[in-house]
Amino acid sequence: MPDQKEYYMRRALALAARGAGHVDPNPMVGCVIVKDGRIIAEGWHEHIGGLHAERNAFAHCTEDAAGADLYVTLEPCCHWGRTPPCTDAVIEHRIRRVFVGCLDPNPLVAGKGAQILRDAGIEVETGVCEAECREINEVFFHYITHKTPFVVLKYAMTLDGKIAAHTGDSRWVTGEAARRHVHETRNRLSGIMVGVGTVLADDPLLTCRIDGGRNPVRIVCDSHARTPLGSQLVQTANEIPTYVAVTARSERTAALEEKGVRILVCGETDGHVDLTDLMQQLGSAGINGILLEGGSSLAFSALKAGIVRRVQAYIAPKLIGGEDAKSPVGGEGLAKMADALALKNVRSMPLGEDFLIEGRL
Amino acid sequence: MPDQKEYYMRRALALAARGAGHVDPNPMVGCVIVKDGRIIAEGWHEHIGGLHAERNAFAHCTEDAAGADLYVTLEPCCHWGRTPPCTDAVIEHRIRRVFVGCLDPNPLVAGKGAQILRDAGIEVETGVCEAECREINEVFFHYITHKTPFVVLKYAMTLDGKIAAHTGDSRWVTGEAARRHVHETRNRLSGIMVGVGTVLADDPLLTCRIDGGRNPVRIVCDSHARTPLGSQLVQTANEIPTYVAVTARSERTAALEEKGVRILVCGETDGHVDLTDLMQQLGSAGINGILLEGGSSLAFSALKAGIVRRVQAYIAPKLIGGEDAKSPVGGEGLAKMADALALKNVRSMPLGEDFLIEGRL
Repeated sequence: MPDQKEYYMRRALALAARGAGHVDPNPMVGCVIVKDGRIIAEGWHEHIGGLHAERNAFAHCTEDAAGADLYVTLEPCCHWGRTPPCTDAVIEHRIRRVFVGCLDPNPLVAGKGAQILRDAGIEVETGVCEAECREINEVFFHYITHKTPFVVLKYAMTLDGKIAAHTGDSRWVTGEAARRHVHETRNRLSGIMVGVGTVLADDPLLTCRIDGGRNPVRIVCDSHARTPLGSQLVQTANEIPTYVAVTARSERTAALEEKGVRILVCGETDGHVDLTDLMQQLGSAGINGILLEGGSSLAFSALKAGIVRRVQAYIAPKLIGGEDAKSPVGGEGLAKMADALALKNVRSMPLGEDFLIEGRL
Repeated sequence: MPDQKEYYMRRALALAARGAGHVDPNPMVGCVIVKDGRIIAEGWHEHIGGLHAERNAFAHCTEDAAGADLYVTLEPCCHWGRTPPCTDAVIEHRIRRVFVGCLDPNPLVAGKGAQILRDAGIEVETGVCEAECREINEVFFHYITHKTPFVVLKYAMTLDGKIAAHTGDSRWVTGEAARRHVHETRNRLSGIMVGVGTVLADDPLLTCRIDGGRNPVRIVCDSHARTPLGSQLVQTANEIPTYVAVTARSERTAALEEKGVRILVCGETDGHVDLTDLMQQLGSAGINGILLEGGSSLAFSALKAGIVRRVQAYIAPKLIGGEDAKSPVGGEGLAKMADALALKNVRSMPLGEDFLIEGRL
């Protein structure tokens, strides 16, 4: 029954996604319990510190789960964390078969939960909708493996590749649906990063404008500490954690610190903040995901440093022209078209009148 | 039965499309004859000078068409052209109902064919899948109304909006499926136009590389007649009609003419060929459609002059960066994002690993 398995796992994935913005730094997990072809329980990891998906599902069973099938997007945990092991609950409820989306990414743990269930006589199948189950937690998986943030490069451009008019005017490139999607991404990732050029040009707040949304930690890549003390970012640094990454301490960094900004002193590459070093420092500070929002020089430096893992390009079907208008990725650029960085697992979707093309690097 | 009507009209549209590249400057037309729920005949306008779609369908009837329904993408003609009026054939075959996609675009003719059928006691419904039936012949409809070519702006760019690396290297931006789609468009349109910059940089042939395909007439927008005598275009000008549009005659235009190039002397706007004038001259020369292939300055001039009717943007999911890398539309550009030229009837489709986003202006 390959179709049924995928159907229930996709339902579990949809449930998992409801945890977006509430469970970080935990993974999002969804669970569906099926008996005689009927869904008798659904659950997901709802918020940090709350029950795991499996236990939430068991808490909502409409009938006895004995003999039922359980679908869960991530391998059930088998260790005591904030909550007791989920494998215990699965065994206690006398589940007959367990379908697992993907194994725990931690190589020291991967497969142990599944093994414990098998040892208890439960049939276990792993890898159901594996790619999707991995993707929904790509930030978590990356961070647990590399201890650095998963970086998403995001930009909005016209169909002729401009992020602004030659005058700098950029309000708005895309429509409401695309802008809402960006805010959902801001809600999903724990950090947001821009270059100081963007701060100087746009004086952005970089908050998440979704009801009940979470503001990401804000990071300015600012080698020479040019972020103005009067900028919106600095003015709100006491309410929303704000990092400024520089290559050396100075009077300006001291002034920023007085306003509540956290200074990260990084190594230098070509006279700029070494992004690999910065990512390590941000990883150590617990930031597992970063939305890289601008501008075009920083985008190229980040691509060149190899820190970008996903690209989200919002494309508005309009033309503005301009040899001097900025395009999303600037810098020196690569010399050969054949050397261009190709995205993998590329997807395209309409968002209102606009389009999103996204993929992995 | 709205679904059935659309089903048969879409079939007729698919048949019409088989005429692409063979019927120009006639419109593509398809026809389906349906009796008691069975398709008893199909036909399309196959080649210039050949039978019209309706007569081709009648020629292939598998049974008597009396009492049948006839679906045709364009209003049946009621005048003698190269062939006798199709309305006569419809009446002779005692068709009961006629479904018409769209009326003849010529306002002097529009509706007359339908009226003749109605006067003969045939039930006629017009406007079935009208938008699609108009779109398939948008070049023909535009030309018959405006007497100027329908201009399609086409470009291939990376996901970060570059048509080449900063070095100029552009082989290849997109993959095979997208490049094949471009050649299909070259086959569909009777002309292809580039700026002299593209000739100097790439020395293109601008031919259609499809088996049995038709080479478009080639036009170089070249205010000061800089097209090299040794270029591939000039070298093949005796085999494939080639126009060079200039602002004044000179020794260089005389030398080009000796090689078989046709010189068009156009009015001047901002020191360049006046594109509106050029379109009128090309329209008078019988060129009804033009694929505008490059470069970015000409693209902006064409947009500014308002001659572009459709945009076909091929997007490769890769990033190359480069502040100095060219983007598809250059020139001065518009000053306000709010003034950007918005496309209508926008569609997106995957082409191999790439995407096509296209729309009307």
